[in-house]
Amino acid sequence: VIIDKLARVLQAKQDLAGKQILITAGGTREAVDPVRFLGNRSSGKMGYALAAVAARRGAKVTLVSTVSLPVPAGVQIVPVETALEMRDAVLSRFNDVDVVIKAAAVADYRPVAPQAQKIKKHDEHLTIELVKNPDILKELGERKRGQLLVGFAAETHEVERFAQEKLQKKNADLLIANDVAQPGVGFGTETNQVTILDRNGGREDLPLMSKTEVAEAICTRIAQFLRN
Amino acid sequence: VIIDKLARVLQAKQDLAGKQILITAGGTREAVDPVRFLGNRSSGKMGYALAAVAARRGAKVTLVSTVSLPVPAGVQIVPVETALEMRDAVLSRFNDVDVVIKAAAVADYRPVAPQAQKIKKHDEHLTIELVKNPDILKELGERKRGQLLVGFAAETHEVERFAQEKLQKKNADLLIANDVAQPGVGFGTETNQVTILDRNGGREDLPLMSKTEVAEAICTRIAQFLRN
Repeated sequence: VIIDKLARVLQAKQDLAGKQILITAGGTREAVDPVRFLGNRSSGKMGYALAAVAARRGAKVTLVSTVSLPVPAGVQIVPVETALEMRDAVLSRFNDVDVVIKAAAVADYRPVAPQAQKIKKHDEHLTIELVKNPDILKELGERKRGQLLVGFAAETHEVERFAQEKLQKKNADLLIANDVAQPGVGFGTETNQVTILDRNGGREDLPLMSKTEVAEAICTRIAQFLRN
Repeated sequence: VIIDKLARVLQAKQDLAGKQILITAGGTREAVDPVRFLGNRSSGKMGYALAAVAARRGAKVTLVSTVSLPVPAGVQIVPVETALEMRDAVLSRFNDVDVVIKAAAVADYRPVAPQAQKIKKHDEHLTIELVKNPDILKELGERKRGQLLVGFAAETHEVERFAQEKLQKKNADLLIANDVAQPGVGFGTETNQVTILDRNGGREDLPLMSKTEVAEAICTRIAQFLRN
């Protein structure tokens, strides 16, 4: 471990020098009313780890984030809350970047009609009508002109099948799959265990490691892709 | 302000000495599936401020909390996530306490049938069926035998009417009302502006102040009630 760390410091890789990288982090919140929202368990830690590592390796990083974690050195932060806000923040910057890493967990659905006032409880049952949010990764896949597109798939079952499907359907270049049903993996944890799939059929299974180590591995794959 | 602070330190009030106080803090999360949940904007800061102040003034404090903030000195923490877990944690301790302060924002409704696997997005629309959660404050009001019951009402409109109604209906002794639609008030902020209503028709309007100062004011009213 010590040798690993030493090696990492001595290398002092700048393999992302000058690259513009946009990273999304956290989970979006979709308002039901001024008090209640539909959320998800993404803590933002994976996205912040990626931002810190990419910046350290020389990239100019913009972090579109729903959470308030300490901002890594040299990273420009763009705070957002909802899926629609995240979409605007990402699409408006897409033409200017080399890489997009979509580490955020974007709500697939939002309430059709968020209430302006707090909903009072009267009835024994209540129904929330939801409508699909735009699929940001898919839009990026359709619009991309040379940008490298890195997606995440957080699944609880049939992880590999869903991740492979997502990689193809969204026209992504790299897809980071994790099984968030496993202990120590994904949401809220300090560690993660991922499989990196690429558009050429490549596959790298990483062991359980810290989110910073996962970020290093992902950045290494990105740097390889950018060189080719 | 300095004289105020000096006075507070010199007093070194122990007016809650030996009292058992149960405080709830944060917002409950009601699972839709393993990834998504219905949440609310309570940060837990008001409940944690109350726990810190009550403990400093001599109370034995149990804090039933949905959030991970630094635990104040001398406070016993009971972590929970859902409304049903919070209900169990509070009711099972109710007979042993002198005061309950319900600062948490408990979800009024939870999904009828949380899914064991992550819901895949297929349809343009989706409906979540909710069922009412038990009303913990009301249950406490029905069961109380001498305990002092302090409720909160976070409203966005008709604040006073709803707060007065809540005080009566729930058989509470003190009701702390705040208008969370005002800037600097309520969820997520460091400050709060509340009105303290009591069961005898008393009413105290406090200015915008820090949550610690609000906690001091609430503890002072609690100590007065306990003396009488």
